[in-house]
Amino acid sequence: TPQHVKAVFDNMLSRSPKNHFTVGIVDDLTNTSLSLGPDLDTVPAGTVQCKFYGLGADGTVGANKQAIKIIGDHTDLFAQGYFAYDSKKSGGFTVSHLRFGKKPIQSSYLITHVDYVACHKASYVRQYDILDGLREGGAFVLNSSWSLKDMEKELPPAMRRIIARKKIKFYNVDAVKLATDLGLGGRINMIMQTAFFKLANVLPFKEAVDMLKASIRDAYGDKGDKVVNMNISAVEKAMDALQEVKYPAAWADAPDEPENTLEEPEYISGYVRPILAQRGDKLPVSAMFPDGVVPPGSSAYEKRGIAIDVPEWQPASCIQCNQCAYVCPHAAIRPFLLSAEESAGAPASLSQVKAIGKELDGLKFTMQIYALDCQGCGSCADVCPAKQKALLMKPLESQAVAQEANLAYVRGHVSIKDGLLPRDQLKGSQFYQPLLEFSGACAGCGETPYVRLLTQMFGERMTIANATGCSSIWGGSSPSNPYTVNKDGHGPAWGNSLFEDAAEFGFGINMAYDLRRARLVDLAQRLQKEKIPATLHKAIDAWLAGRDDGAASGPLGEAVLDELAQSPSGDLAHEIWQLADFFAKKSVWIFGGDGWAYDIGYGGLDHVLASGEDINVLVLDTEVYSNTGGQSSKATPLGSVAKFAASGKKTDKKDLGRMAMSYGYVYVASVSMGANKTQLIKAFKEAEAYKGPSLIIAYAPCINQGLRKGMGKSIEEEKLAVESGYWPLYRYNPELAAKGENPLQLDGKAPDGTLQSFLSGENRYAQLERSAPEESRRLRAGLEKTCNARYNLLKQLSELPGK
Amino acid sequence: TPQHVKAVFDNMLSRSPKNHFTVGIVDDLTNTSLSLGPDLDTVPAGTVQCKFYGLGADGTVGANKQAIKIIGDHTDLFAQGYFAYDSKKSGGFTVSHLRFGKKPIQSSYLITHVDYVACHKASYVRQYDILDGLREGGAFVLNSSWSLKDMEKELPPAMRRIIARKKIKFYNVDAVKLATDLGLGGRINMIMQTAFFKLANVLPFKEAVDMLKASIRDAYGDKGDKVVNMNISAVEKAMDALQEVKYPAAWADAPDEPENTLEEPEYISGYVRPILAQRGDKLPVSAMFPDGVVPPGSSAYEKRGIAIDVPEWQPASCIQCNQCAYVCPHAAIRPFLLSAEESAGAPASLSQVKAIGKELDGLKFTMQIYALDCQGCGSCADVCPAKQKALLMKPLESQAVAQEANLAYVRGHVSIKDGLLPRDQLKGSQFYQPLLEFSGACAGCGETPYVRLLTQMFGERMTIANATGCSSIWGGSSPSNPYTVNKDGHGPAWGNSLFEDAAEFGFGINMAYDLRRARLVDLAQRLQKEKIPATLHKAIDAWLAGRDDGAASGPLGEAVLDELAQSPSGDLAHEIWQLADFFAKKSVWIFGGDGWAYDIGYGGLDHVLASGEDINVLVLDTEVYSNTGGQSSKATPLGSVAKFAASGKKTDKKDLGRMAMSYGYVYVASVSMGANKTQLIKAFKEAEAYKGPSLIIAYAPCINQGLRKGMGKSIEEEKLAVESGYWPLYRYNPELAAKGENPLQLDGKAPDGTLQSFLSGENRYAQLERSAPEESRRLRAGLEKTCNARYNLLKQLSELPGK
Repeated sequence: TPQHVKAVFDNMLSRSPKNHFTVGIVDDLTNTSLSLGPDLDTVPAGTVQCKFYGLGADGTVGANKQAIKIIGDHTDLFAQGYFAYDSKKSGGFTVSHLRFGKKPIQSSYLITHVDYVACHKASYVRQYDILDGLREGGAFVLNSSWSLKDMEKELPPAMRRIIARKKIKFYNVDAVKLATDLGLGGRINMIMQTAFFKLANVLPFKEAVDMLKASIRDAYGDKGDKVVNMNISAVEKAMDALQEVKYPAAWADAPDEPENTLEEPEYISGYVRPILAQRGDKLPVSAMFPDGVVPPGSSAYEKRGIAIDVPEWQPASCIQCNQCAYVCPHAAIRPFLLSAEESAGAPASLSQVKAIGKELDGLKFTMQIYALDCQGCGSCADVCPAKQKALLMKPLESQAVAQEANLAYVRGHVSIKDGLLPRDQLKGSQFYQPLLEFSGACAGCGETPYVRLLTQMFGERMTIANATGCSSIWGGSSPSNPYTVNKDGHGPAWGNSLFEDAAEFGFGINMAYDLRRARLVDLAQRLQKEKIPATLHKAIDAWLAGRDDGAASGPLGEAVLDELAQSPSGDLAHEIWQLADFFAKKSVWIFGGDGWAYDIGYGGLDHVLASGEDINVLVLDTEVYSNTGGQSSKATPLGSVAKFAASGKKTDKKDLGRMAMSYGYVYVASVSMGANKTQLIKAFKEAEAYKGPSLIIAYAPCINQGLRKGMGKSIEEEKLAVESGYWPLYRYNPELAAKGENPLQLDGKAPDGTLQSFLSGENRYAQLERSAPEESRRLRAGLEKTCNARYNLLKQLSELPGK
Repeated sequence: TPQHVKAVFDNMLSRSPKNHFTVGIVDDLTNTSLSLGPDLDTVPAGTVQCKFYGLGADGTVGANKQAIKIIGDHTDLFAQGYFAYDSKKSGGFTVSHLRFGKKPIQSSYLITHVDYVACHKASYVRQYDILDGLREGGAFVLNSSWSLKDMEKELPPAMRRIIARKKIKFYNVDAVKLATDLGLGGRINMIMQTAFFKLANVLPFKEAVDMLKASIRDAYGDKGDKVVNMNISAVEKAMDALQEVKYPAAWADAPDEPENTLEEPEYISGYVRPILAQRGDKLPVSAMFPDGVVPPGSSAYEKRGIAIDVPEWQPASCIQCNQCAYVCPHAAIRPFLLSAEESAGAPASLSQVKAIGKELDGLKFTMQIYALDCQGCGSCADVCPAKQKALLMKPLESQAVAQEANLAYVRGHVSIKDGLLPRDQLKGSQFYQPLLEFSGACAGCGETPYVRLLTQMFGERMTIANATGCSSIWGGSSPSNPYTVNKDGHGPAWGNSLFEDAAEFGFGINMAYDLRRARLVDLAQRLQKEKIPATLHKAIDAWLAGRDDGAASGPLGEAVLDELAQSPSGDLAHEIWQLADFFAKKSVWIFGGDGWAYDIGYGGLDHVLASGEDINVLVLDTEVYSNTGGQSSKATPLGSVAKFAASGKKTDKKDLGRMAMSYGYVYVASVSMGANKTQLIKAFKEAEAYKGPSLIIAYAPCINQGLRKGMGKSIEEEKLAVESGYWPLYRYNPELAAKGENPLQLDGKAPDGTLQSFLSGENRYAQLERSAPEESRRLRAGLEKTCNARYNLLKQLSELPGK
């Protein structure tokens, strides 16, 4: 993010009196760039130019910035860094352009003549033009688990030809394996940086390693000794792991593979593919859709393959609870039910078991992994309640191919059987098609599981007004659209206007819908006064009676249309047909994060909630401005470290729920998926059904919070948050008050005393514990007091007599 | 307001198919104008051109618009209306420019050749150039109580000369007397409109009267039969009351009066006076202050004299409670204490009695009326609790002269004795000089008494960030400034940025103050480390210890400066002198109405309250957007009629106080001056003293609410609102929570069952009762339920055990 670059830039200016730097800053959202110094200077002779292809989550950019800092702080060399990103969240694609040299560098353009290129993600070799511009005899470092033999298959022929013809110094390092062995998970940055210092010849290697180690102590000191030591080990062991690839001279003439015959829609092949391959700037204007509409479901074509490990289903252990699918942030694991015929036609590789439950009698059950769409967080395996885990994490390479035929079969030949179990039940909900899939969200994202579930409950009639923030980025990263449609072509309509106006935007949409539905009602009633068949009259009656029932209104409308199609047509009927999509009651949702809901968009949110209109709001509360890198919001709790709250936030979290409750006519729920999956479904169902404004505040773990156990544990963290009293669970339903009951139902238990250990499990709290132990104790004691007092107050309020 | 003009314009277009109109719209806030049709057309021959000088409260503009409508709807004449305002609230100056004729009128400029001019306020004859442009033989109608003999004295010689030389048809009508006799109070519009139809010769008179009566039934129908009948009587009786003035021919040579020798500051004589006389557009740019600063206290020079009746003090009946001064919206009635010497030197006309109370032993007491500054609401007389009222309302003419010498004496020769009784007591507070006086607020304004009191409690160290709204208009109507200073030159610093950003604006000011005070502390502590006299060292110690005490910090700072003046000066001392105004702890206030606090500025208000900073917010809650003419806000209660809520508001009033309380660290009070004057002072005192954010929500009756008893009863209305349960009284003090007590104190009693009668006393509720009785009943039952439920909840919350 630009903030990161700015921070590095400031660091450099302040730390490097000896040197000058130029740093290009590109904001990938606004496409503005800032460069220092004249534009047109050519690169001085002797400058070493390096490119790094990284994954947002692997630390490549951070390591590159660290390299600049090390070289800038400790040598006489001039340095330049430029960092390009796609707009995916963590896990997205990054390219770093670094230059080093003895003369000032003032070239504010991308590197075209490359001395050193590193590809930190093996699957990129087929997605991007990695070796573009690499000079004769230049160095290429690849992170892969491939043997030379594998490479014959995995590296595209064109790449092999370039390597051999240009006599590239080609090295491979299995950084993932090494990092995993060291306990670093997917963080391969130190290993790759060591390779850079070894091969790019910018500094004497030994010297560089010493500086690298010192910088590790400096950078990771606040994360604890363990992290420091793991990274230092990574540097030390990286040398052995780095192996020169002794490729055969025959690569110079590697024959082309047979052409890909896959047929894809024009939008995908002509527009999405070039952009995904970073060739969007070569598209003509005519390739753009002039109305700004993005077709649904395009993310399914990405097949990013960025996971390290993906789950493998163990049918024998599975209890068919569907919790794995329920918590998956990317809809990359889904249960299917197979009829006898579908079962019989399945490939042998497709594991099937008898479906459990009398409603599913006679059907087979399978849990299908979408290996190339999975980001490998492991939430599914973590949440699996079976005695023996029914999901085991296995390397992507082993699964992608194995699952290919199975996936093609269930998608192409197995129908979605979504009417057999209740939609508002954990297990039943997962037999409904998720209409949010394969988004650009981070692995383990706490936000997307909520939205994916919503699309399973109401997706075919949803409209979403999205505030700017993470949910607008993973929800709308051009050119891909992760919102998709069901077999009837129905799915969420989605739009984003501004950061601050999502509530107003959604309110306006809702108002337009209300008016158009009122028009439809009027037309239908007028039609009834004409001479029409009795069956049509009756169908209209039924729809009029049930038109405000979310689930029933659509089918009742279909029945009217069926009758209408068989009746003589006039002007009224014609206009009714034009409004046919308003027979189904729309489910209008406003999505945003806490930066929007608690801060920047709060004025509008409050106004819309106060309006009394039938509209639904989902706040994905990560307790910081996640999209811009973790700035403090009014949702940030006391004592939490965030940007602009570096010594821990000094005020309590705003109680948005209680403020909304004060209206009395706003449905309010506080939910946490991992803590109570049933309460969550209840809240969604009640909120959507309530004929007035609804506000759901959902606890969403986020990479900015620094879960020490990793983002694969985000669902468990949601549970611990509630048990410790950190996050309250409740539902405030004005309909109960109308019945004379207390509208507030407290769904969580009293804090169990684990709050401090919960806090220590997240770096946002833990880092203050190390850097300022006394202040940390004071703030955390205050936070505990607040959490307890909030629970007590909610309990007291929930126990007041109704009227 | 532009909205009014727009509404009339729309009416005309829709109601007058026969005719064309041009209507100029001037927004007096933005100085933008909209005109229809070409600019340069001259007025067609035969067009009748009329000007009306009115008072904002007397209905002149409304009547003029009605005249246009009558003529437009019922005749073949073309009509044009243009309405110019000053920026005072109700009671301000208006000039209407009306043209009527048989040919289309497309002249978008003010009337310069006048056929008919009406002056609806007698005192204007000396303030404005009323007869400017009146043609030979034209008609002039004056509303005054003057006999011909009075006119010799009251009309300026130049005016008399013009009347006689141009052979003006001069008529007088004592419209105030007639209106008062009919029960119409100050509303003379129908009487003056009758005079217009009689004398301007636009329509046959009988025809015009019939149309006028019909339009009265149409316009006032929703205010009830009584109002309709009073207005029809006014039309009928106006003819007898309209008397031609048989002025002597000698007026043609009326000799000039001796020149006014009053000496005034250059700012007043050179800048304020020309603007007040509507000659501001003749001022050169050099007359403006380039920095935008307006000197304090300039409203005291206006002496608008717009009241009809003003109070006369009855010393024998007075119990010296000072409640009259406490409730006065314009600081136009003030108690003074006279020493023996001051008493002896006073003019005989100054009534004095022995001051009551042992702290005031040996002093005399007088209650001084500021007759020309008074707007005649009568709040003082109404609130007077003495057995025999100690204030009687008498015609302004009888009082202005009688009080002139007394006023000059108390202002010039009687010191303000403000240290004798406690400042935070009702009686004591009124011996402190009000630092808000003679503002442009409406007669009986519910807002200004709160602010006036605040200035008496904290004025000399106050800074005010004001949202746009009534309080920014009466608080800052160029060229006058109603905020003034005490004898030391200290008073509120006041600024207005935008409608929506008052909270942020005040927050920024506060932040700057904090930083500058921190700098002062640093300087003082550094000075202590130098070789300085022990007395200076001690004085600094004392100030450092007491620097956060609002009342003590100023004097402690003075003591430091006294010592510093006697010590050798160096760089540190020099810089301390530059920051000398930061020794006193500032009292930073954010003012705004409900349109700002509940709606447009709420996002910022919430953010500032959440900040935890020591800042004070006063919400003047009139329950509508008062400044723009009464649009519904989120503070508008269920069932209240307002613009955009013409059939009664359908949702409950937002509970701003409870929302702010949810933070736990925000001081919150709900107050209503007339209901509990002591609770109000307590709330102001606690809020100001609290070292964190404070929010005071003050119930403020307003002309937009349509109090049926009139605005002179606004203080009583505040009492009835609380007794009926319509408005809650409470204080939420986080300091109590810190002591383990319940922070919420409920200061009001349970609703006493009078809510429905309270509602029927205000047109905003009563008019729905007439126009839609069933809906009115439904909404009012809902409102009663809400009020009772709110009281019960607050009571339950206030009774929860502390911790």
